[in-house]
Amino acid sequence: MITLSLIGIGTGNPDHVTLAAVRALNEADLILLPRKGDAKSDLIDLRRLLCRNLLDDPDRTRVVEFDLPRRDAQADYLSAVEAWHAAIADAWAALIETHLPRGGQVGMLIWGDPSLYDSSLRIASRLETCMKGCTKGTAGYPVEVKVIPGITSLQVLTAEHRIPLNALAEPVQITTGRRLREHGWPDGAATIAVMLDSGGAFESLVPEGLYIWWGAYLGMDKQCLLDGWLADVAPSILERRAALRERHGWIMDIYLLARSPLGVGVRHRDDQ
Amino acid sequence: MITLSLIGIGTGNPDHVTLAAVRALNEADLILLPRKGDAKSDLIDLRRLLCRNLLDDPDRTRVVEFDLPRRDAQADYLSAVEAWHAAIADAWAALIETHLPRGGQVGMLIWGDPSLYDSSLRIASRLETCMKGCTKGTAGYPVEVKVIPGITSLQVLTAEHRIPLNALAEPVQITTGRRLREHGWPDGAATIAVMLDSGGAFESLVPEGLYIWWGAYLGMDKQCLLDGWLADVAPSILERRAALRERHGWIMDIYLLARSPLGVGVRHRDDQ
Ligand SMILES: C[S@@+](CC[C@H](N)C(=O)[O-])C[C@H]1O[C@@H](n2cnc3c(N)ncnc32)[C@H](O)[C@@H]1O
Ligand SMILES: C[S@@+](CC[C@H](N)C(=O)[O-])C[C@H]1O[C@@H](n2cnc3c(N)ncnc32)[C@H](O)[C@@H]1O
Repeated sequence: MITLSLIGIGTGNPDHVTLAAVRALNEADLILLPRKGDAKSDLIDLRRLLCRNLLDDPDRTRVVEFDLPRRDAQADYLSAVEAWHAAIADAWAALIETHLPRGGQVGMLIWGDPSLYDSSLRIASRLETCMKGCTKGTAGYPVEVKVIPGITSLQVLTAEHRIPLNALAEPVQITTGRRLREHGWPDGAATIAVMLDSGGAFESLVPEGLYIWWGAYLGMDKQCLLDGWLADVAPSILERRAALRERHGWIMDIYLLARSPLGVGVRHRDDQ
Repeated sequence: MITLSLIGIGTGNPDHVTLAAVRALNEADLILLPRKGDAKSDLIDLRRLLCRNLLDDPDRTRVVEFDLPRRDAQADYLSAVEAWHAAIADAWAALIETHLPRGGQVGMLIWGDPSLYDSSLRIASRLETCMKGCTKGTAGYPVEVKVIPGITSLQVLTAEHRIPLNALAEPVQITTGRRLREHGWPDGAATIAVMLDSGGAFESLVPEGLYIWWGAYLGMDKQCLLDGWLADVAPSILERRAALRERHGWIMDIYLLARSPLGVGVRHRDDQ
């Protein structure tokens, strides 16, 4: 029997881990840490730091780093993603087979929350099939998946700006940069949160009347926040984003857009 | 100077608090615990439990319970909410004035995350004005607000069902029962999460092709999960909801609806 715990760890602030996450880490026999290439080494650094600081008995829990297979940038998006997930599941299966031949508890540290724009659950659903292909001890072992929620980048964005996510009793749409570019402002949404934007998808909107709260590297020392009327601050956000990306070699950012800052926060009560 | 920390505490599982929340609790000079009447006494129980278990020095941090003012059920919704927030801010100001006449750090334990369908930030934005009206020491003190994110009920829902929130690269709408009843399925949304439903707003939808993941009392001992095609399980959810509400005297539930379970989770891979 293999238990795979997908453990949400927050998005950069080590204090954002929950007591449940600390417990799950310490219950694991094996922790798999994917390396994603040099540029984003800060991201694996947080995972290493959490393992170092939070594991009570490093002799009990084996931490194994591995190189994440790369996604085929050429192929059609959805089939490339499928193939990539399959390759990652194979990699997990091989590592579990090697390091836990008689089964046990495997932990994976998941950035933010495992439910939000993250593939681990989809990859995990392939794991059992992959384990069937194993030639050694764990072949055919059933895989039980557990999920430990973690603080998302969206929550750090709202917390650091000290704003609610939703206008009073109004809905919120969580969407991607790609989607915003292709479909524009979603009908009926009072507020939208945009993730996975390769840069400036908000430029595709008519800025009048839109307020933006932007954040990059949330929870980390290099965290950067900007907010204002979109028409005023869009250029500064794009400039700042490019400069930060240049300086650090990578960037992750997220933003909230609303039709007006009215009632959406303590910072803007002077506007009311 | 008064610092008011709105501390997200999760939605029932004491292990869902973060290390940052534990720290913020211990840094507070005063913690205000609102009592909301008898029915939902489980909710204040969790807050009391967290204070008991997590405060290192109960002599340093004073925990003060108070009765939350009631909302006028008669008046027009928005103006009733306005008046209610003003009354709560007044109550906070009076308690701070009494217990921290020379200023200091105030902590409030917020259910789930302070950004999600929660009024504390809006009430906090009124606090400074209220403090101006105080007659004693803290009159006119500036109020600094801090937000500590917490695990939301939506995250516990997806974690316990072991499903992603979003379909691959697709958007998600977070909405309310009232809104779903009045406006139907939001255009372009692949998945919707429904909160604050007084019961069965999903009945207003054409159920064909819709899958539901439902959860009540998430994170608590009495947690209850149901999922299935909406057409099949809607009656059982309504029945179970009524029975649980009857038994416990109150209920809080939340659900996710998607056009199909395909790729949305490890539990349903047999459907694919
Ligand atoms: C693949 S998704 C993973 C999201 C993650 N599961 C979460 O809960 O936040 C990556 C996107 O999340 C956002 N993101 C994650 N971490 C971030 C951070 N520290 N600061 C700003 N945005 C972040 C960015 O929009 C980024 O493109
Ligand atoms: C006023 S909102 C507060 C939400 C909270 N701030 C959060 O982060 O989850 C209350 C709604 O949240 C959902 N909710 C909160 N706690 C819950 C729980 N333990 N189980 C199920 N639903 C819950 C329900 O939809 C409820 O109507």
